[in-house]
Amino acid sequence: MITITDDNFSSLNEFLDRKSFSKIFILVDENTHEYCLPVLLGNMETDLAFEILEIEAGEEMKNIQTANQLWEILTEMQADRKALVINLGGGVITDMGGFVASTYKRGIQFINIPTTLLSMCDAAIGGKTGIDLMHYKNMVGTFTFPEHIFVYPEFLETLPFKELRSGFAEMLKHGLIADKIHWEHLIRMQKLDAQAIIPHIKTSMDIKQDVVRQDFHEKNIRKTLNFGHTIGHAVESLYLNQKNPVLHGEAVAMGMITEAYLSFAEGLISAEDCDLIIGNIQKYYPYLDISDFSDDDIFDLLLNDKKNAGNTILFSLLSGIGACIFDHECSRKSISESLTFYRKLNDA
Amino acid sequence: MITITDDNFSSLNEFLDRKSFSKIFILVDENTHEYCLPVLLGNMETDLAFEILEIEAGEEMKNIQTANQLWEILTEMQADRKALVINLGGGVITDMGGFVASTYKRGIQFINIPTTLLSMCDAAIGGKTGIDLMHYKNMVGTFTFPEHIFVYPEFLETLPFKELRSGFAEMLKHGLIADKIHWEHLIRMQKLDAQAIIPHIKTSMDIKQDVVRQDFHEKNIRKTLNFGHTIGHAVESLYLNQKNPVLHGEAVAMGMITEAYLSFAEGLISAEDCDLIIGNIQKYYPYLDISDFSDDDIFDLLLNDKKNAGNTILFSLLSGIGACIFDHECSRKSISESLTFYRKLNDA
Repeated sequence: MITITDDNFSSLNEFLDRKSFSKIFILVDENTHEYCLPVLLGNMETDLAFEILEIEAGEEMKNIQTANQLWEILTEMQADRKALVINLGGGVITDMGGFVASTYKRGIQFINIPTTLLSMCDAAIGGKTGIDLMHYKNMVGTFTFPEHIFVYPEFLETLPFKELRSGFAEMLKHGLIADKIHWEHLIRMQKLDAQAIIPHIKTSMDIKQDVVRQDFHEKNIRKTLNFGHTIGHAVESLYLNQKNPVLHGEAVAMGMITEAYLSFAEGLISAEDCDLIIGNIQKYYPYLDISDFSDDDIFDLLLNDKKNAGNTILFSLLSGIGACIFDHECSRKSISESLTFYRKLNDA
Repeated sequence: MITITDDNFSSLNEFLDRKSFSKIFILVDENTHEYCLPVLLGNMETDLAFEILEIEAGEEMKNIQTANQLWEILTEMQADRKALVINLGGGVITDMGGFVASTYKRGIQFINIPTTLLSMCDAAIGGKTGIDLMHYKNMVGTFTFPEHIFVYPEFLETLPFKELRSGFAEMLKHGLIADKIHWEHLIRMQKLDAQAIIPHIKTSMDIKQDVVRQDFHEKNIRKTLNFGHTIGHAVESLYLNQKNPVLHGEAVAMGMITEAYLSFAEGLISAEDCDLIIGNIQKYYPYLDISDFSDDDIFDLLLNDKKNAGNTILFSLLSGIGACIFDHECSRKSISESLTFYRKLNDA
């Protein structure tokens, strides 16, 4: 399912050779068009015709209007049920391209070639597709696995540092929820760069895949992957709503700090573990200013979080470093305390 | 999965009692709001809160704009993953309501309560959801089974004759492709009304369900259900595009005539069977004027038919009364001949 293709996409070529597609549609944004598409096209060996579909980069594009344009273009180009969509990009491309493919003519095949660390370790794997609606992330989508995921780590060399650090937040999360040794490898890195990170990507992907394999539709253990994402998603949405988006990993880092604090406040982890976790996240990530948002702004979004039902707000919280529980209900009071704790970090 | 509920929805009440939904959203159009919703609400016994979502009636509404409005309303009303959507209506409601539910928060549960003969015998069963795109029918959608289908035959009593006749075309089709005895029962009816049709609904639904069960994703035998729908869909789309929609069954009747002729021209059925089929369809359905559409208009649509790949046009054709083959390629010449044959029927 996932192939790490450090040998110039030979496995992709074998895949294209083995399957009988009618045509290829490669979805890119202007960045992956410039930096990644030449690499892909330089290595791809196939007689199939292909078209390039380019969208503007950015989470703001991950909406129903863009999806609709893509459906219309596929229709105009007479893409049939044997067409293949190749999503070449970060999470916006793989989420949206997956949604468009999984619903066009009730589903055509697609593969993901993630180009960012975030999409390699998170968005491109796991079979969640989606678009944002109003100011809610991934409100509309499907559970559909790509036919295959080809990971070409060399793409990370061209990635800006902030993007790399954004993806690294998901790796830290994978360590925190499931694998203490992975976490320890990650926090002991001397320098946060592609060369240091690449050796650890496979472990991080395996953690996610293993969880997804156990619970595709997120009825139980898959919810642990939401650690850091409950408050993190809300803050990310609020920033997006202000037309001032932050990177996903920056919001998740903030979410992991507040939710580690919640884990401590709920008596699930020790003060020492909590300090250690928060200290290491702060080592990598700058403080994210949330002074524009009230607790109520955040509650409103938490209540519409996909994993919540009724008026309760459920969290995935740490029960140790490398262990996580889910469906833990927190009161508004505790959540407010964790936000107050976070606001004070700025004064420290 | 399907329950015929001639006992005032007791099976629906048991279903609602057994499951733990958070809230109910009932999707209706103005017709089912007026004629069917009072019956449903008068019989539904539940403590759950519910909301009515009403859309305008008509195939023109089955588009991405309406779907988007429904997603937004569900979001604003904070529908969570345990919410239930009840699609109360004909094919537009069950197709679109199913699509919206199957993608909202990556899928919430829905049930179908078909109110037309067409939706009872076709749209509401089979797990295909979808919306139209540009002038193509069901271009975007998912394969998702409803949790349950409740069929309340009494609804047919309020249905206009033309709507009843429209649905009856699917019943004739089920007989033609799979069950000669069913076909013979249907063509021997003295009068086309609800009381005459109701005893045969179950057989027709069973034929469809049986085919769907064998091949949910339409890789093989399910394609036989497309008999009459290749040319029929194209003509239906052309009429819709002219803002002059015809009923689905009227287009399918026209499609079954041309495709029965094609089956004969391709040497698959005898001239006698062909005459018998066409004569019985003409007995029920008025001639559908296609003089505004050129063969090329129709070819353009056939090439983008979901079941076609590349430049070939594939048909499901009869190989007898009660027998059907699929993936049969027809040349443009044969298709033109069948259209010429149809045009001449008007002169006869």
